[in-house]
Amino acid sequence: MATNRQVILKSRPSGVPTPENFAMSEAPLAPLKDGEIRIRNRLFSMEPAIRGWLDDKESYFPPIAVGAPIRAPSLGVIVESRHPQYTKGEYVRGLNHWEEFSVMTESTILLAKVHPSSSVPLSYYVGVLSGSGLSAYVGLHDIGRIREGDTVVISAAVGAVGGTAGQIARLRGCRVVGLVGSEEKARVATEQLGFHAAINYRAVKDLSAAVKDACPKGVDVYFDNVGGATLDAMLLTMNVQGRIVSCGMIAGYNQQDQPPPIYNLWEMVARQLEMKGFLLPTYGASIPAAQAQLEKWIASGELKALEHKRFGLENAGPLFCELMAGKTIGKTVLEIKE
Amino acid sequence: MATNRQVILKSRPSGVPTPENFAMSEAPLAPLKDGEIRIRNRLFSMEPAIRGWLDDKESYFPPIAVGAPIRAPSLGVIVESRHPQYTKGEYVRGLNHWEEFSVMTESTILLAKVHPSSSVPLSYYVGVLSGSGLSAYVGLHDIGRIREGDTVVISAAVGAVGGTAGQIARLRGCRVVGLVGSEEKARVATEQLGFHAAINYRAVKDLSAAVKDACPKGVDVYFDNVGGATLDAMLLTMNVQGRIVSCGMIAGYNQQDQPPPIYNLWEMVARQLEMKGFLLPTYGASIPAAQAQLEKWIASGELKALEHKRFGLENAGPLFCELMAGKTIGKTVLEIKE
Repeated sequence: MATNRQVILKSRPSGVPTPENFAMSEAPLAPLKDGEIRIRNRLFSMEPAIRGWLDDKESYFPPIAVGAPIRAPSLGVIVESRHPQYTKGEYVRGLNHWEEFSVMTESTILLAKVHPSSSVPLSYYVGVLSGSGLSAYVGLHDIGRIREGDTVVISAAVGAVGGTAGQIARLRGCRVVGLVGSEEKARVATEQLGFHAAINYRAVKDLSAAVKDACPKGVDVYFDNVGGATLDAMLLTMNVQGRIVSCGMIAGYNQQDQPPPIYNLWEMVARQLEMKGFLLPTYGASIPAAQAQLEKWIASGELKALEHKRFGLENAGPLFCELMAGKTIGKTVLEIKE
Repeated sequence: MATNRQVILKSRPSGVPTPENFAMSEAPLAPLKDGEIRIRNRLFSMEPAIRGWLDDKESYFPPIAVGAPIRAPSLGVIVESRHPQYTKGEYVRGLNHWEEFSVMTESTILLAKVHPSSSVPLSYYVGVLSGSGLSAYVGLHDIGRIREGDTVVISAAVGAVGGTAGQIARLRGCRVVGLVGSEEKARVATEQLGFHAAINYRAVKDLSAAVKDACPKGVDVYFDNVGGATLDAMLLTMNVQGRIVSCGMIAGYNQQDQPPPIYNLWEMVARQLEMKGFLLPTYGASIPAAQAQLEKWIASGELKALEHKRFGLENAGPLFCELMAGKTIGKTVLEIKE
């Protein structure tokens, strides 16, 4: 345990990242200080948000430096602890890095102990039972204030967050329409995830018209994972006093220096819309109830988790590139075998 | 009283309207039906929102037809009543038309009796003590949720709504910065309306940088009357969980078929912003308290009302064109002498 294998940022991507933007590296393992724990990582959550951190642009987190390991949520097992409340062998998750071992403290963002159920795949604890599922739940309830009977439209509808959000909205009695980028994804949305309808935006000439056709009562809540032209089209479909949940804007993540323009913001006034962005750590108080409900739905089989899984730390970069190219369905997750 | 003089839409404007888009016309005065009242109009509120109704585009109101009178808020005195609760001689306001006489019923939008104070100019009752002032008050409180100590930025800061909003925010203990389009307007904002600072956006190269300089603690609330490039720049200045009050987006009103693009919406997620559009009639429950507070501040002299006033129905079109060309300061109001 003298060195730590890591995936570092070799060069900043321009546009969609490529595997060459990442490189394997080794770093020494420092002895733990009081209050620290060391985990051996087992699972990494691949998330579009990471793309934003690769640009040399200050945002809600500082940019990842070239040569530094890639910041990402992970789940691991404690191999060494100098914190009285954390014991060797326990599972812990939080915002760490793409690396074999991570050092965590109480101030690690989204730090949480995980008590895996033997009947649930461990990878669910970095996906549907973690940030992806919690973002879907908190976004729909705390931001979108969904009510039974609402019409809810969700973009990136077979993605990790979108696919979970669609199922939750359906379980809450909403009519749920998904926006996706291929016929295959449209079939997954309706046949596997139970969306009432799905629209392949690449196959329609007028997305607003297609959404209006699929939503005869208009749209009460738009759960937005993509921004850009899709958001622009959705603004023309919203009911008066509708809510737009800004969870992500992946349409701009690969081109943050040239974000896609939005033209229809006047509808914010005319339709009296509310648009609200959120980041999960702000809604800590809502997480325990959300987590409990998600675990209940997973246990009962009412909530399904689709996964796109690869193995081995050296595949982290290529897997992330697949995600950012829109090639994945379900939660994209990297596992390191025991 | 056999005919009614009206200003009608002669042709739809393209871009900034011109006086030729309007024409005088006469219509017969029909006998009143039960439940109707007839007022002789004394004052018309000139509002940028009217520009949107001149386009052939369905919005929160249907478009004004070519040949039809211009829809607009007015205040008049009752000359004939077939409604038991309305008496000849009383003052009434509501959404009427540019015309000598208007027929109103209980379903007239924003219908309200007015009890003018002898110490207050009657024109205030279509401006600071009506839609303009109420929009400022409701926007800041109900939508922006201003708190003492907040930094509030207001665009179109010497307009009817903006100038009132700036004073209200200051009276509530906020730091208030106004955005305007000329040096003269900047002086009016700081010297007459008590803004803590004003920025002439035409005179600065980087509006975001100028706002950050004027707001060392960042921006908590942006009261937006203009949208467009100004909103785009403001998105880069907002504090985490800041609120954007979408009261109007005049930047697009003269060119609704080519609205100005917005590029920085990603900040909605990164900064966890809330943007909310509103129309005053939706907030009816808040109006009585707002009205009472505005009247108190006007009576005490704490709230000032600047006006840009012209006389005579035939000047309604030209006056509205001045407003839409950005040439006016304060409330633009048309008066018909007794």
